[in-house]
Amino acid sequence: MLTYPFSGAEPLYQQLYRYIRNDILAGRLAAGDKLPSKRALARQLNVSVITVETAYDQLVSEGFLETRPRVGFFAAALPGGGRAPEDAAQMEEGAEPAAGSTGRLRTGDAPQAGSGAEQPEESLPRPAFRYDLSASRTPSEIFPFSVWARITRSLLSEQQEALLRTSPANGIPELRTAIARHLYEYAGLRVSPHRIVIGAGTEYLYGLLIQLLGFEKTYGVEWPGYRKILQISESYGVRTEKIALDESGIRPDRLRAQGVDIVHLTPSHQYPTGITMPAARRYELLQWALEGERYIIEDDYASEFSLSHRPIEPLFAIDRDSRVIYLNTFNRKLAATVRISYMVLPEPLAERFARRLDFYACTVSTFEQHTLARFISDGYFEKHLNRLRTYYRHRRDSLLRALRESPLGAVCTVVNENAGLHLLLRPDRPVPEEAFAQALRRRGIRLAGLTDFGAADAGVTDTGPAGKTAAPDGPVYIVNYTALSPEEAPAALREVYEAYREAEGDR
Amino acid sequence: MLTYPFSGAEPLYQQLYRYIRNDILAGRLAAGDKLPSKRALARQLNVSVITVETAYDQLVSEGFLETRPRVGFFAAALPGGGRAPEDAAQMEEGAEPAAGSTGRLRTGDAPQAGSGAEQPEESLPRPAFRYDLSASRTPSEIFPFSVWARITRSLLSEQQEALLRTSPANGIPELRTAIARHLYEYAGLRVSPHRIVIGAGTEYLYGLLIQLLGFEKTYGVEWPGYRKILQISESYGVRTEKIALDESGIRPDRLRAQGVDIVHLTPSHQYPTGITMPAARRYELLQWALEGERYIIEDDYASEFSLSHRPIEPLFAIDRDSRVIYLNTFNRKLAATVRISYMVLPEPLAERFARRLDFYACTVSTFEQHTLARFISDGYFEKHLNRLRTYYRHRRDSLLRALRESPLGAVCTVVNENAGLHLLLRPDRPVPEEAFAQALRRRGIRLAGLTDFGAADAGVTDTGPAGKTAAPDGPVYIVNYTALSPEEAPAALREVYEAYREAEGDR
Repeated sequence: MLTYPFSGAEPLYQQLYRYIRNDILAGRLAAGDKLPSKRALARQLNVSVITVETAYDQLVSEGFLETRPRVGFFAAALPGGGRAPEDAAQMEEGAEPAAGSTGRLRTGDAPQAGSGAEQPEESLPRPAFRYDLSASRTPSEIFPFSVWARITRSLLSEQQEALLRTSPANGIPELRTAIARHLYEYAGLRVSPHRIVIGAGTEYLYGLLIQLLGFEKTYGVEWPGYRKILQISESYGVRTEKIALDESGIRPDRLRAQGVDIVHLTPSHQYPTGITMPAARRYELLQWALEGERYIIEDDYASEFSLSHRPIEPLFAIDRDSRVIYLNTFNRKLAATVRISYMVLPEPLAERFARRLDFYACTVSTFEQHTLARFISDGYFEKHLNRLRTYYRHRRDSLLRALRESPLGAVCTVVNENAGLHLLLRPDRPVPEEAFAQALRRRGIRLAGLTDFGAADAGVTDTGPAGKTAAPDGPVYIVNYTALSPEEAPAALREVYEAYREAEGDR
Repeated sequence: MLTYPFSGAEPLYQQLYRYIRNDILAGRLAAGDKLPSKRALARQLNVSVITVETAYDQLVSEGFLETRPRVGFFAAALPGGGRAPEDAAQMEEGAEPAAGSTGRLRTGDAPQAGSGAEQPEESLPRPAFRYDLSASRTPSEIFPFSVWARITRSLLSEQQEALLRTSPANGIPELRTAIARHLYEYAGLRVSPHRIVIGAGTEYLYGLLIQLLGFEKTYGVEWPGYRKILQISESYGVRTEKIALDESGIRPDRLRAQGVDIVHLTPSHQYPTGITMPAARRYELLQWALEGERYIIEDDYASEFSLSHRPIEPLFAIDRDSRVIYLNTFNRKLAATVRISYMVLPEPLAERFARRLDFYACTVSTFEQHTLARFISDGYFEKHLNRLRTYYRHRRDSLLRALRESPLGAVCTVVNENAGLHLLLRPDRPVPEEAFAQALRRRGIRLAGLTDFGAADAGVTDTGPAGKTAAPDGPVYIVNYTALSPEEAPAALREVYEAYREAEGDR
């Protein structure tokens, strides 16, 4: 039985959360083990039920616990069976089971506060992975907290009436105008603010588009591609087709063959392959759109992050026939936790939106709309983008250098170093994918492969008249470097290399 | 031709917005008049195209201008034909047409800056109505700006990591736990935080529920009722039935007859009639829900605003069979422009949500989630609710007193003074509805009738076995007093009375 010594430095529920999570990571709580009821644990630890509830709830949210209705809470099966005991022990120096313990917290065991060894101090929950090469996260050192705080303070004291004024369905004029000006200055796009719609994230806007364009239409998604778009389409119950790529991106012949009306595209940097769609293919797609009442939803999520060249002109810029809907987000540029995205509708669709969807309240609070509008129009956004590019370029270059200096560099090739905020890595000699994945998980590394994005799905990998498929020979891995500091890169790559060797040994 | 003297005190686009709006309100620009193109007007006024664009855009958003694609911008037809010239002149003392003017800004006219009379100073756009008795608005004096600013400042400086940590799909644990505790302390409801889902407004959550419960289901809405719920259902393309009320609220016999699977209800204060559903009807509805895979969505939007008695126990509290989804919002309690609502799912639906909709990013930014969580858990929310109740009770009582003292009080009866944040007023002798509506509009008064909420719709007004319909004899009007100060109430009622007399004269 583990002891749970609570300190006063941190909310109790967070300490409890951490203790239980560490028990699971260390294997002291195995997959399927039942936890004490919230009431029982609260009594045993002499804390409130709410404290236990919050801790359990966070553990459920993060996938450490599972809840079965009317039965209770159970430790979840972690990918790869959780971290191996020796790793866990390394990570938790100082924590040791009390005498007579089974090493596990089980129903009926009564952990007690106040005795036993100390846990190392940790003010925030530690992520479940030691190195997460799949996370797209904004490091807190890069978020413009002080400017954001200054603008917020000024609005809350001087613009109170404006903050309480109802936003039009498509967003406050100040923000739409600021975005229109940014699009002009940054990408040379001329759009009138009345065609812009602000919403709480790209996912939300995609849902609005389904309502605007129709449930009877067939929606196409790039495959491999951004899985959430597929999930939203499916959640809305609309017919959805996965469309194969070739080396130029999505294939118009497949769009026709699969009866697609509306297609979601990432032409600047196809996600996740990083393919930049060449001009010829762009015109082919516009041609496709003219063959019926068809629309292209261009998701330009990474345009401001072209690290090596000028931003790529969007498809939207060459559309003369009102067939392209332009979608972009501030999530990646500010923080994924600030939910502000926007779309630019072709004039006829802007009219349709005003007629049919104008009843919706805008999903972004006016407080954040005004803050962002001021942030952009006072010039901070542009400065911030420049700073971000420098910052991420440094992270990417450090990663590439670490890769050259690592033994991993000798057995892998960088397929695309300009894929957005990630690079693509291909082992020169393919390793068994499942063994590699397991070896990575055992080491606490999260690393996604193209197959995780559907690259191997039946029905989208056959080559067509347009040529080869996009999937190169053998598995390709996606290394997101936004959350990987230059200091961590060498150690992370060393771990990946060791997992690789282990998987090779399995062959 | 009007002169547009710009001052330096205010953004140019806002001044331009105001000038044009006033021209429309004063009738100097009549319905259908074409405005100069953005480029032409910008040149004439020596301002940027963006300035004109923003002003036009805001005018379009607020319904003063209409845009026709590829043609241009036109003055919109205002309800009641705009304000009568004499009223407008009263409101704009000091503004007068320059010599030789037609009084209208037309295409080809070239307004010039710098000459002519001064406009009275006005730092914010004035609402289109002199007295808006339909608006549900948060007066800025009641929003807790200073506490909000203090919490925001503290989070932005001390909780940076937390603000950038991805929120679970259903919201951050801190906020869900704070809400769970509030529900327990305030309404005696015991819910586990993992069953709570946070979202950017009730409308968004209702859309999520359609995705969760199924597009093949038939949805029912109270009628007369909250029109947006009907609009969302229709926008999602699901079969939607308007369900008649009787004096106890929605009729279960109609739910059965119309084949409804999911019904949206406001049992505490039916919107807009204010009917509080009696216990017997509540149990009848729970019984109805058990007859199939049926669910009740209980929208408890006004529960904290019961001004005259303890909050009414929600239907959710007596549901033993996981058939009631509880929906509530912070919009009315904080500000409609802070988009935060939540729902509590029955355990099986919480499981289904985690399985099927967990891929969605939460639509409320972590910045605002953390601010609100702190606001609730530090006890400010409860204090604020008490303050709000006192504030609105004072507004209501002032309105009732003004009504007794007004000649209007002698010709109208208050049907329900406890309907939420509005009261229902019935003229003792019915006046011709259309004439009354026109007389109100001419005076710049917005006042909605029950008929605006569908009370007279065919198919929902016939009485059934359950008894009388909810619609009392003759028209009933809904007076929202959130935005009506005690100082304004007597004058507003005097205008309503005069409109009433005028409409009576039309008989």
